[in-house]
Amino acid sequence: MSFTLQHTDKNTRARAGVLKTPHGDIHTPVFMPVGTQATVKTLTGEELIRCGAEIILGNSYHLYLRPGAEVINSAGGLHTFMGWGRPILTDSGGFQIFSLSVNKKIKRDGFEFQSHLDGSRHFLTPEKVVEFQTVLGSDIMMPLDECVSYPATRDYVEGSLEITHEWAKRSKKQLTANRYPLTANPLLFGIVQGGTYLDLRKRSAEEIVNIGFDGYAIGGVAVGEPEDIIHEITSYTAAFLPADKPRYLMGVGTPEDIVRAIEAGMDMFDCVVPTRNGRNGQAFTWTGELQLRNALYKTDPKPIDETCDCYACRNHSRSYIRHLFNTEELLGLRLVSLHNIRFYVTLIQQIRQAIIEDRFAGFMREFFARRLKN
Amino acid sequence: MSFTLQHTDKNTRARAGVLKTPHGDIHTPVFMPVGTQATVKTLTGEELIRCGAEIILGNSYHLYLRPGAEVINSAGGLHTFMGWGRPILTDSGGFQIFSLSVNKKIKRDGFEFQSHLDGSRHFLTPEKVVEFQTVLGSDIMMPLDECVSYPATRDYVEGSLEITHEWAKRSKKQLTANRYPLTANPLLFGIVQGGTYLDLRKRSAEEIVNIGFDGYAIGGVAVGEPEDIIHEITSYTAAFLPADKPRYLMGVGTPEDIVRAIEAGMDMFDCVVPTRNGRNGQAFTWTGELQLRNALYKTDPKPIDETCDCYACRNHSRSYIRHLFNTEELLGLRLVSLHNIRFYVTLIQQIRQAIIEDRFAGFMREFFARRLKN
Repeated sequence: MSFTLQHTDKNTRARAGVLKTPHGDIHTPVFMPVGTQATVKTLTGEELIRCGAEIILGNSYHLYLRPGAEVINSAGGLHTFMGWGRPILTDSGGFQIFSLSVNKKIKRDGFEFQSHLDGSRHFLTPEKVVEFQTVLGSDIMMPLDECVSYPATRDYVEGSLEITHEWAKRSKKQLTANRYPLTANPLLFGIVQGGTYLDLRKRSAEEIVNIGFDGYAIGGVAVGEPEDIIHEITSYTAAFLPADKPRYLMGVGTPEDIVRAIEAGMDMFDCVVPTRNGRNGQAFTWTGELQLRNALYKTDPKPIDETCDCYACRNHSRSYIRHLFNTEELLGLRLVSLHNIRFYVTLIQQIRQAIIEDRFAGFMREFFARRLKN
Repeated sequence: MSFTLQHTDKNTRARAGVLKTPHGDIHTPVFMPVGTQATVKTLTGEELIRCGAEIILGNSYHLYLRPGAEVINSAGGLHTFMGWGRPILTDSGGFQIFSLSVNKKIKRDGFEFQSHLDGSRHFLTPEKVVEFQTVLGSDIMMPLDECVSYPATRDYVEGSLEITHEWAKRSKKQLTANRYPLTANPLLFGIVQGGTYLDLRKRSAEEIVNIGFDGYAIGGVAVGEPEDIIHEITSYTAAFLPADKPRYLMGVGTPEDIVRAIEAGMDMFDCVVPTRNGRNGQAFTWTGELQLRNALYKTDPKPIDETCDCYACRNHSRSYIRHLFNTEELLGLRLVSLHNIRFYVTLIQQIRQAIIEDRFAGFMREFFARRLKN
């Protein structure tokens, strides 16, 4: 068994566990910084390790287009290519085909699409996607699925589910058949879809669990639906996922989203928010967000967050970081990205401790109260 | 005495020394990374220290416009503002007024100009410039001077010299009168001008030395004149500078330029080349420059330079760095900037050792031979 459930909070569904992967153990709940193009934007691997990141995410769609399988294969996989020795989870590319590519067309056998970069034509099957992830040497692989847009008709979602479930089976078969993946014994997760239809979410969860995977993801959320619906789907669906496997909520979210999802029993999260918003000068703190471009911080000698131990907070003032954004200096993007990643990791580390000590409900109340203060 | 001349090479004019400044000792020859807007572009102070940088340069013109005296004063000076505890040399802004500002006009009393950023009007006198540098808390200050463009008539240069020399006197007087500078006992250097007229260079050197400064700079070179002229002026002028004071060649240059200037007896250098070229993907090595965007490096697993101990070379391949440039990832700019700074610092550290051991001439021969190989 790759996953050990250490403790479930007495008063909520929140869980603490350990997931064993080929490149090391991950303590759940866990936040996975997004390394879209083989780099977590603006940061080095050393900085991520200092932030406490145990695993990062890579995007198959982007890596497939650039630098492509040949370059990564020649480097001996994504870990070596990008100089990152800890675990990597890679998505299947399904979400980016859905959100980025042009002229995409779903067929029974796979996705036909054109690259958003140069219009080049591609056809990706579930088998090819698993094969590409074995070239990457991913520790945790995701099967190709269709991420249905919001809103979608019930008929469309039902038809889409059939394809997603069939692709899930084919992906599992392909990984089993692939005898010599670069990373020995990679994990493969199943993805539950079903749009905003709770009964379809239930059906999808049951069918995916029935196929049997190393972990289970909830996909197709945070695609434009209201926040409450994200939470309703997550909370409802999580209940159908086996307790002895890790549960991954894909692409979510804000600190609040993550806290609520942990309450619902989810374990793993990835989101571009800390880095993307960081590059826009938005810093996360325990009392809410700061927009560091704001003239309010012109001479503010305080760090972003006085309780934070990141490099930015130990060495630099809000005034200095504002100046960096004001003068378009790249160091500003680095410092706030770094701080935000550290904030997310610290948050989730504190949550884990609270779960282990059966005080997550109180932690959550205090967290929401403080965050609203700002 | 702030400067100790440790050794002069037996076969050339190259020197090794130690310069004491309020924020620490500098071992000369020394390369000063350029931190134009209170940041050496893309890099942190910690990275600069790891690169072995002992001192950085700040640009008064840029800092005067943004963030301005109020913000830096409120932070308690430039060191605190940017989180850099080692020495800082600041220029006077004369060169940037010359090269960046609009509608500039030199008057007997100072420079009238408009900001290149917003067209705002400013008038800077030698006194104001020294005062601003005391707000910065600079360890080494430079007096306001006129950087004459190339080519310039002899008449123009002669007239300009009179102003530069008068401003030098006024700057010294202003610093002496300024009783409580933020940094106690800052150093003030004199700047030798004179364009490409050797006899005017000599006259300027004599007059500036006669005023008496803590160190002497050669200014107004590398403003568009051919390389050989830069070298001729440097070599000729250096001979008129006192042996017991540090000698600074402003804004120079390529590794070759620096090696030749050290041969001529110069001690201190600053240049944007390692960081600016780094951001364009050009990496310096002992066998010449690499353009890392080049398809040649698509799958090249080697580091930029196998003999280099910088973070980029210890952790990343040319193939990976090429991918970062290809996908416009900011980490690429960081890695090559970092490597180039480390290359410059390593070069100058090796030169210093060669001087101390009286083998600089041999070092120089080998250096030029290897660099031409590529």
